[in-house]
Amino acid sequence: MRRLGTATALLFLSMTLATAARANDMQAVSPALAKYAERRVFGEVWKRPGLSPRDRSVVTLAALIARNQAGEMAQYVNLALDSGVKPAEISEVITHLAFYSGWANAMAAVAVTKDVFAKRKVGSDQLPAASPKLLPMNEAAQAAENEREMRVGQQFGTVSPGVVQYTTDILFRDLWLRPDLAPRDRSLVTVSALIASGQVAQVPYHLNRAMDNGLTQLQASEVLTHLAFYAGWPNVFSALPVAKEVFERRAK
Amino acid sequence: MRRLGTATALLFLSMTLATAARANDMQAVSPALAKYAERRVFGEVWKRPGLSPRDRSVVTLAALIARNQAGEMAQYVNLALDSGVKPAEISEVITHLAFYSGWANAMAAVAVTKDVFAKRKVGSDQLPAASPKLLPMNEAAQAAENEREMRVGQQFGTVSPGVVQYTTDILFRDLWLRPDLAPRDRSLVTVSALIASGQVAQVPYHLNRAMDNGLTQLQASEVLTHLAFYAGWPNVFSALPVAKEVFERRAK
Amino acid sequence: MRRLGTATALLFLSMTLATAARANDMQAVSPALAKYAERRVFGEVWKRPGLSPRDRSVVTLAALIARNQAGEMAQYVNLALDSGVKPAEISEVITHLAFYSGWANAMAAVAVTKDVFAKRKVGSDQLPAASPKLLPMNEAAQAAENEREMRVGQQFGTVSPGVVQYTTDILFRDLWLRPDLAPRDRSLVTVSALIASGQVAQVPYHLNRAMDNGLTQLQASEVLTHLAFYAGWPNVFSALPVAKEVFERRAK
Repeated sequence: MRRLGTATALLFLSMTLATAARANDMQAVSPALAKYAERRVFGEVWKRPGLSPRDRSVVTLAALIARNQAGEMAQYVNLALDSGVKPAEISEVITHLAFYSGWANAMAAVAVTKDVFAKRKVGSDQLPAASPKLLPMNEAAQAAENEREMRVGQQFGTVSPGVVQYTTDILFRDLWLRPDLAPRDRSLVTVSALIASGQVAQVPYHLNRAMDNGLTQLQASEVLTHLAFYAGWPNVFSALPVAKEVFERRAK
Repeated sequence: MRRLGTATALLFLSMTLATAARANDMQAVSPALAKYAERRVFGEVWKRPGLSPRDRSVVTLAALIARNQAGEMAQYVNLALDSGVKPAEISEVITHLAFYSGWANAMAAVAVTKDVFAKRKVGSDQLPAASPKLLPMNEAAQAAENEREMRVGQQFGTVSPGVVQYTTDILFRDLWLRPDLAPRDRSLVTVSALIASGQVAQVPYHLNRAMDNGLTQLQASEVLTHLAFYAGWPNVFSALPVAKEVFERRAK
Repeated sequence: MRRLGTATALLFLSMTLATAARANDMQAVSPALAKYAERRVFGEVWKRPGLSPRDRSVVTLAALIARNQAGEMAQYVNLALDSGVKPAEISEVITHLAFYSGWANAMAAVAVTKDVFAKRKVGSDQLPAASPKLLPMNEAAQAAENEREMRVGQQFGTVSPGVVQYTTDILFRDLWLRPDLAPRDRSLVTVSALIASGQVAQVPYHLNRAMDNGLTQLQASEVLTHLAFYAGWPNVFSALPVAKEVFERRAK
């Protein structure tokens, strides 16, 4: 038997509890689901190499928030905390998805998360400031953002000046620069939410951005595997050709 | 300081209360969200010219119903009533979206709205009749509808005769002619619901119809800005190229 | 008056009760909805020939689970049982959609269904085994599956080996072969879920598979009509051109 670190052991315990929480219900309706949960989802998928349990928690939370599935959310907020996601990061995931999944999705996540935070004594000192000092943009990031603004402005500046302006002011020069969630993790959240809600058209830009921000191809590939279970096969099969094209272009 | 009319002052009070209702929850999870709500969503977006608060209420309600987000709905039904949307109009928005967003979405909206109506003493005398005298179609509308029926019949008459028949009988020669929601407002509801639920393929027909029904390009542009917040950026970015093409074709 | 069999009479009673359950709420918000429910949805659509009430129950349940609409689900689980869907089949529908609509959708359906099962004394002896003897694949099915595996492996084997492997191991060589839901019914569930959640890109493969599994074109056409009401017109109008192409290719 392989020896586990304390953190990993705690995480696996947390996963076992997550399985057990629904086990009786599943047995009463579908013993098969209970089997798949135990053997496949928690027993296998969550333990696959290529994407850490911590990242899988982030992906799962993003999928649940994007799909507005509050009923399952509490156990995965707990699982995220147990797998090393900081309360400040969960806070930022929700804030981020207010813009990438819609305001009401964030409000539903707030309602669930406040109870989990209260039970676990997560106080306001562990939360990000409303207006923190933003991450600096280096020269390359600045150039890329200037290019994005110009391109989007040319495309849609007359179609919806409000959208174009807020995309710059609130998203790329504010939200994305908030320091309590790393850009790579914001990208992980964004890509997961896009795939989980069937927003294929927006995947190429954000998958490229994610990989620019440090997400490896192996990790992106595992995000797809993980989301097959949490967002359903069809969403993932619709994202596969898009991911393939992004991977191939970057390989050139 | 600009003097506000009583109605506007009441509306802003209602918006302040809407913010406050979630403020404690937001503070406990994301002080940033509370800041964005106060400064951006309610403090800025709702007050943008180009689309009245009344229309923004209709757009928001349509988005919430289309996305089946009952948790946030009550406060926006109240906000709609405070911003001048009549109970009969809210009733028709829900009825309309039973067909454009699915029966269960309407049922979820009914469950929320009946409580709001009860609290505000909205009685059955303020509701539309089940079978009112329908709006007449003028000659141009009749010709356009005949053309639509012929086109859809040719395309899909053998694929699904049931869909084709009900589209005519229930939607365009019944629902759309119900008198308690203006055709322009039905279009506003339809377009908002389509964008909010990622139904891009159906936007061109209905955005054109909306503008034929009196929605201006500026208003349509502001619908996109408003929905960026309530339906999430990705849905709006997927709708932008479609809106652009509609606007450009109509400009010719 | 046509004499009804006892089963049909019971079903119509069940439909009447389903209407009545929401009738007061509808009257308090939209008397029009109550009228459409009575005259159109339950009074007409559910009784259309071409698709049995039993199949319509399966389609409706699949749509509600795929769209995560738990609020309406209990009455339709009851209606399904009253229209001849076996508890074991409902159990398999939920298990199937765990993979085709996402894990959390299945969990939401489990939460509702366990209460219905408890009230109707559906015991574990009526549920499918967790690991039953799988249906055998005949030579043609084996060949088709080999071809699918090769094609998907070539397309996406390097993009996401995990997805590709699990698609074979869990879906097509396990889930689809579970004996308590006929392949034709699994296809009916899959196609309904895809259309109901706007997954148009995945419809061609699964609609073809459905028709290979015995779903007739008339039945598929009626699925579209039925889903217009339960998944909303836009989802169905986006599916119509895809269905048309599948029908036309198969006619050649």
